Amino acid sequence: MTDWGTRAADRLTRIAACSEPGPGVTRLPFTDEHRAALAEIRGWMEAAGLSPTLDAAGTLVGRKEGTGPGTFYLGSHQDSVREGGGFDGIMGVVLACLAVEKLSQDGVTLPFAVEVLAFADEEGVRFPTALMGPRALAGTFDPAVLELADRDGTTLREAMTGFGLTPDDIPALARDPSEAIGYLEAHIEQGPVLEQCEQALGVVTAICGIERHSVTFTGETGHAGTLPMRARADALVGASELVTLAHHTGREEGELRVTVGQLDISPNVVNAVPREARLTLEIRSPDDRQREAAGSMLANKAKRIADRWGLSLEMTRTYHQPAQPCDAGLRAALVEAATGTGEAGVELASGATHDASAMADLCPIAMLFLRCDGGVSHVPEEHASAADMGRAVDAMARFLAALPGR
Amino acid sequence: MTDWGTRAADRLTRIAACSEPGPGVTRLPFTDEHRAALAEIRGWMEAAGLSPTLDAAGTLVGRKEGTGPGTFYLGSHQDSVREGGGFDGIMGVVLACLAVEKLSQDGVTLPFAVEVLAFADEEGVRFPTALMGPRALAGTFDPAVLELADRDGTTLREAMTGFGLTPDDIPALARDPSEAIGYLEAHIEQGPVLEQCEQALGVVTAICGIERHSVTFTGETGHAGTLPMRARADALVGASELVTLAHHTGREEGELRVTVGQLDISPNVVNAVPREARLTLEIRSPDDRQREAAGSMLANKAKRIADRWGLSLEMTRTYHQPAQPCDAGLRAALVEAATGTGEAGVELASGATHDASAMADLCPIAMLFLRCDGGVSHVPEEHASAADMGRAVDAMARFLAALPGR
Repeated sequence: MTDWGTRAADRLTRIAACSEPGPGVTRLPFTDEHRAALAEIRGWMEAAGLSPTLDAAGTLVGRKEGTGPGTFYLGSHQDSVREGGGFDGIMGVVLACLAVEKLSQDGVTLPFAVEVLAFADEEGVRFPTALMGPRALAGTFDPAVLELADRDGTTLREAMTGFGLTPDDIPALARDPSEAIGYLEAHIEQGPVLEQCEQALGVVTAICGIERHSVTFTGETGHAGTLPMRARADALVGASELVTLAHHTGREEGELRVTVGQLDISPNVVNAVPREARLTLEIRSPDDRQREAAGSMLANKAKRIADRWGLSLEMTRTYHQPAQPCDAGLRAALVEAATGTGEAGVELASGATHDASAMADLCPIAMLFLRCDGGVSHVPEEHASAADMGRAVDAMARFLAALPGR
Repeated sequence: MTDWGTRAADRLTRIAACSEPGPGVTRLPFTDEHRAALAEIRGWMEAAGLSPTLDAAGTLVGRKEGTGPGTFYLGSHQDSVREGGGFDGIMGVVLACLAVEKLSQDGVTLPFAVEVLAFADEEGVRFPTALMGPRALAGTFDPAVLELADRDGTTLREAMTGFGLTPDDIPALARDPSEAIGYLEAHIEQGPVLEQCEQALGVVTAICGIERHSVTFTGETGHAGTLPMRARADALVGASELVTLAHHTGREEGELRVTVGQLDISPNVVNAVPREARLTLEIRSPDDRQREAAGSMLANKAKRIADRWGLSLEMTRTYHQPAQPCDAGLRAALVEAATGTGEAGVELASGATHDASAMADLCPIAMLFLRCDGGVSHVPEEHASAADMGRAVDAMARFLAALPGR
């Protein structure tokens, strides 16, 4: 009997060498490392009976026809962050290929075509944009991003052309939504939930929406010895109250995440009252109304905090992205498939964005999370076990086999 | 009738030109600007009948004999911070000279000698040490500091030698405490209290003691989207609670000042939970027991905060200096002198350190504070009015005239 988990682990160890030198894996899009990775992935696809072609957006597409109409998509991204790990993204490509190969080995023929997609760039590390591959397929690609440059001054267009691609052909990649049955992405959880409940697999309910605020409290500085406490307008005192409140707001509601990740004060010296505190407030939730309610509540409270401490407040929402719910039918089918492998069928929201977020504009999406050690990702220590990956291949194959044709 | 306030203001405007180019006043010790300032101060002393000599520590000492034994000291420092104002320090030298001149003009002869002291360095901006002048007189000077270097690599010893001084003679400057009657320093308040109670003059009760703590909370970082709120060990959440508590502790007790002036977190990015928060906690009080009680209470609370949020805590007291109470007799005499000029005789603690802090090791001290605009200091806008300075000259002359001989 094939040990799918060990095969996945071996492939991931091998492709981790397609990396810039240094700790962990650094594989950026449209580089020599990307090219080396594509050669590996081509081999995985061919072993599964998929025919690989590289599309104009740099996505390696492995296609296998079925006995009926429509296409089901599987995949994830090949790239990593700088000095990241060997699982985030690429594991989803390995598991998709192995699931298709397993079906073939089991003699299962599907009533639809499957395509495994190895997207070039999801992390957005090299260029200040991401998700080009799925956006091209969904018809939401904005060609203006081709003129964005990396830190060496190379534009995305130049990098892609140098890689042998024809970026002007990207708009023609858009797929027909009526032909698209759905998209399934397997990914490490990047959080501790599955580890805590001792489950290998989790089914994603929704990809959280995100909003980010830039917040500045401004008061007055003064000598820490001579300025009486009640005469102070201490910007850090206001900021600290907001940090505490933001954290408690997040704790009150199950799937809300509220984070002050960045805080800088000035003058930032031991014997001066802080005049200014600049911070970021990030709110995520699978429920847009919950997120928006938390955002406006915290904006109101920030105003009150500023008034109480004699500070002025500037607060701007700098970014927002709505939640992407996973398709109810696919989600139920994935729970059933996971349960079939002996899992409890745990469901959880995804706090992070994935290729699935952009694929949602083309077709219904589903996501399968795998337990990762200590919940850590984007570091060399990032790890999912061979046993868990084996179970994921099983669940993905069961899921595909159970899907009805058109 | 002489307008002493206008004379003080004119002198301060003139000596403000003894500065490095740039905004405000930058006059560091043992520089050309210091030398130019000494020429001015020499003139002020001579006009008051004081005989100036430069001592080995760079203090310009203007002495006038009295009809009896003992010496009363007056003075402050000639140096400024970088891009500071024209009042901090130097105003105390001007007012001392004018008070002596006024007594002379009024035909008052004192039963003790007076010395006006223009100290070289109180701010500690050029070299990482300060208060060399008063420490030399008090016999508490540590010759090891002569080897400390400024940012150009010049040692204090080299700078002083280049200025024409013989630093090895400093230990011989120590005065006989039995000959020292007391020390009076006039200084801008550097805070808003006098302005708020509409008084020109304030009598200092004590120079606050200071303690500083270095505090580090360490938790774990993680993805702001994937790490559930209850699984977090967010170092900034712990730090924020301590900031809030520190501020409220200060507000509860009249003369306590508690300040978190410095705070740095890492990784300090919008979408990561802060792993580490490093902050400084400074506590000042004219009452050492009050300050120490606040320090140990906050250390206990910091430990509890760390425990509650699953953080580790490192907290170290990095600096402490006890309070210096002003002499009860001199303080009462100064209140009486201030009241004689029409002032209410307001008393307040000094949150900042002054030359008087070091002179306290030689003799009883007293300090007179002058109202300053907006309570600001160490900036070009620092200002005390001519009218207030005139009143201060009057009060200082009254104070000296009323002091009994030995």
